[in-house]
Formats: sequence, structure tokens, C-alpha cells
Amino acid sequence: MTHIDPTAVVLLSGGLDSTVTAAIAKQDGYRIACLTIAYGQRHQVEVERAKAVATALGAIRHVVLDLDLRVFGGSALTDDVSVPKDRTHEERAGEIPVTYVPARNTIFLSLALAYAETLGAYTIYFGANVLDYSGYPDCRPEFIRAFESVARLGTQMGSEGRAVEVRAPLLMLSKADIVRRGQDLRAPLRLTHSCYDPGVDGLACGRCDSCRIRREGFRLAGVVDPVPYAIL
Amino acid sequence: MTHIDPTAVVLLSGGLDSTVTAAIAKQDGYRIACLTIAYGQRHQVEVERAKAVATALGAIRHVVLDLDLRVFGGSALTDDVSVPKDRTHEERAGEIPVTYVPARNTIFLSLALAYAETLGAYTIYFGANVLDYSGYPDCRPEFIRAFESVARLGTQMGSEGRAVEVRAPLLMLSKADIVRRGQDLRAPLRLTHSCYDPGVDGLACGRCDSCRIRREGFRLAGVVDPVPYAIL
Repeated sequence: MTHIDPTAVVLLSGGLDSTVTAAIAKQDGYRIACLTIAYGQRHQVEVERAKAVATALGAIRHVVLDLDLRVFGGSALTDDVSVPKDRTHEERAGEIPVTYVPARNTIFLSLALAYAETLGAYTIYFGANVLDYSGYPDCRPEFIRAFESVARLGTQMGSEGRAVEVRAPLLMLSKADIVRRGQDLRAPLRLTHSCYDPGVDGLACGRCDSCRIRREGFRLAGVVDPVPYAIL
Repeated sequence: MTHIDPTAVVLLSGGLDSTVTAAIAKQDGYRIACLTIAYGQRHQVEVERAKAVATALGAIRHVVLDLDLRVFGGSALTDDVSVPKDRTHEERAGEIPVTYVPARNTIFLSLALAYAETLGAYTIYFGANVLDYSGYPDCRPEFIRAFESVARLGTQMGSEGRAVEVRAPLLMLSKADIVRRGQDLRAPLRLTHSCYDPGVDGLACGRCDSCRIRREGFRLAGVVDPVPYAIL
């Protein structure tokens, strides 16, 4: 009899965090089914990177779901307002960023839940992280636990007593820890994309909050970031 | 100073229940912003009816969001499996219907939450009903309360102490009660569409679970169903 590893759904944006999360899911013994939500974000290049990452990690399936959240408005990632540049850690701290997309993680987890139920999977991996983005309300442990209650009560498998677990293994890690973890697991970091405002050539700007946090993380981890930037 | 009524988001499918729910929201003193999710269901005619209902009820906004849940599969409403016909109440009872869409209400409420947060609205109206569809796990009061916790923890407005309330005023009503309520409120029942399997002419089949439940509801309420059917 052949043993088949259980399947986990991984929310995969194509960024650093979700790529390391997917590598952790594999390390934990799961076959991974990746879900990428193309939500009308500026950085369409992320979707292409997500496909490359899913392939590199041997995902058994990869669904890209189009969801145009621009119909609601309300965020720099989906509207035409400026992405802040060159902000220090202090300038970023303690506020909800303009790049916040209303209820994004609730929506993404809901879609992952639908995918999981369809596949008969009981585990969702999710690259949320509280430290660098303390301003995002939907990246907190209590949010994730509340979502698990919704998943238990709102699905067929939940009503049959099979709870869905949402794992956010990066939740308490620093960006440097995430880089180290990715390096240790040989995650395809060279394929990842983190920039909120890439150029027409797809190059990361190096100056938005996400680029700055990423570069600082690689620097502190003592790892060379394999991704090229528009600035030095 | 002019008083402006607060805004509520209404999940509007174009069916009987959501139309009566929208009429209740207006009766409760809200301006209504309607959200229709076009999720790749067979009955595209529902989306057209939803537009007509929103107009008839004087909605201040109506967003139709495309979301192709067929990428996941798993339901008669989105896949190419047969919709059951001519089932009695007993045959329908006690099982999760084949028309169940995985995590549908979780997804729909998440999207309504994003819309509410964008509008600065604190109330979501939702036409869930436990009695006729006891098999749908995501139509239960405890599910709705759990979702409110997610909404509180997962949004900017929640973290600012403004909780979102999910109102499901039909939750405990029979279909006959819903028909009566709609009649009392002069809801545009003639524009609603409930059929899971309409003909190419858009006519309701009269034989699927949804048609049977609806027609029985009108009969018990002593109200003539203003919608034509393909059968008598």
C-alpha cells in the first residue's frame, strides 16, 4: 500500500512570506495545492511569480482566481493612490497602512476554505506575519482563531466534525527569521516578488514599505537578496 | 441640518429571500448598497433580476462582483451535475444538498464586509434562512455570530471599536412567513428569481428544490406567485 501525504492548501501570493510558508508546508509533510488570488493589484508580476514558485515547489495543483476588488476601492494596492516610499520603520509603525485592503485576509481565507473543502483538505497555510505589519488588523493570532471557528461552523466538513486548521507559521517571526527559514528550506527565494510598486520592467522599486522591510530582513539575516532592484 | 440615513450593505442574489431582506433593511431605516456575487452559477438570469430589484428598491449603489467559483468545483450550482428535481420535503431533509457551494456564505459575507468597510457601513443584511435549507451548514445563527467575531478582529473599523453587525432577519422564518413579509413591505417579488435550473427562456422550472420550496411558501401564505413557471 502506497502512503499518500495529506494535502494542504497554501495561499500563495508569489511574495517572500507565502513562498517560505509553502516550503514549510512541504517540510511538514503535505502535498501542496496553491491558491493565488489575482485581486486587481498593481503588481500583476506577482501572479507570474506565484506560478513559478508553485512549479518550483512541486505543487499538485495551482489555482489562480481572478477577483477584482477594485469594484470596492479603498486601498493603494487596488486604487490609483500613491504607494508611500522611503519610509523608516518609525514612520511605518502604529498606523494601518494605506496599502491595507479591506477585509483582504478574511476574503482570502474564505476562498482557501472553499478550495480546501473541495479538495477534502483540512489544513490551510497562510503567510501572515504580525511584526512587520502590525498595522494590518487581519494578521493577528486572534483573527486566525476566529476564522477557524467560522470554518468549523460554516462548512460541510466542519459539520461532520472535521475541523480546518489555519496555520500561520511565520506569524511571530521577524523578516530576518523568515529569510533564514527560507534559506534553510531551500525555498525558491529568487522567484519571489515583494514590491508594491514595480516598474514597467517588473523590477522591484526598492523604496516602498514592502521592499524596505524585505531588504532589511535579508541584510539582518546575512543573506544576499537574489532579486534585482531598480535602485542599489 | 439634513439627516442622512445610515448605509447598510445587502447581499442581493435576486432571489425571493434576499429581495425581502433588502426591503426589510429599507424598512429598518437604512440606505441600501447592494452586492451581487456573480459566482459562475448557471442562473445568470439571477444577476439581471438583482439589478432590477436594486433599482426598484432605490439602492444608492449596486456592485456586481464576478467570482468564478467553478475553478474549485464541488457543487451542482457551479459544476455540470444534475440539479435534483421533484423531491419532496422528506427527500430534501437531513442532508447537505448537492447544490451546496463550499464555504459560499463565508465568501459572500467576507466580500460584503470589504464593501461595508469601504463604504463606512456597520451593518450587513443577509438573507440566510435555517428552516428550509437545514442542510446548509453556513445558514446557522452560530455561524453568523462567529463571522461577526472575524469581522470585528479582521477589519480596520473593528480595531477602532466599531463592530459590524450581520443581520439575518429571515433566519427563523418559514418560506410562507417570508412571502407574507415581502407582501407587507411591497417588495418587488415579481422581479425575483429562485430557480436553480431555469430554461433557455429564463423561465423557472418549477421542479427543483428551490422552486418547490418557493411555490409551497406562496401557497401556504395564500399569495399568488407573480413569477411564471415552465410547468403549471
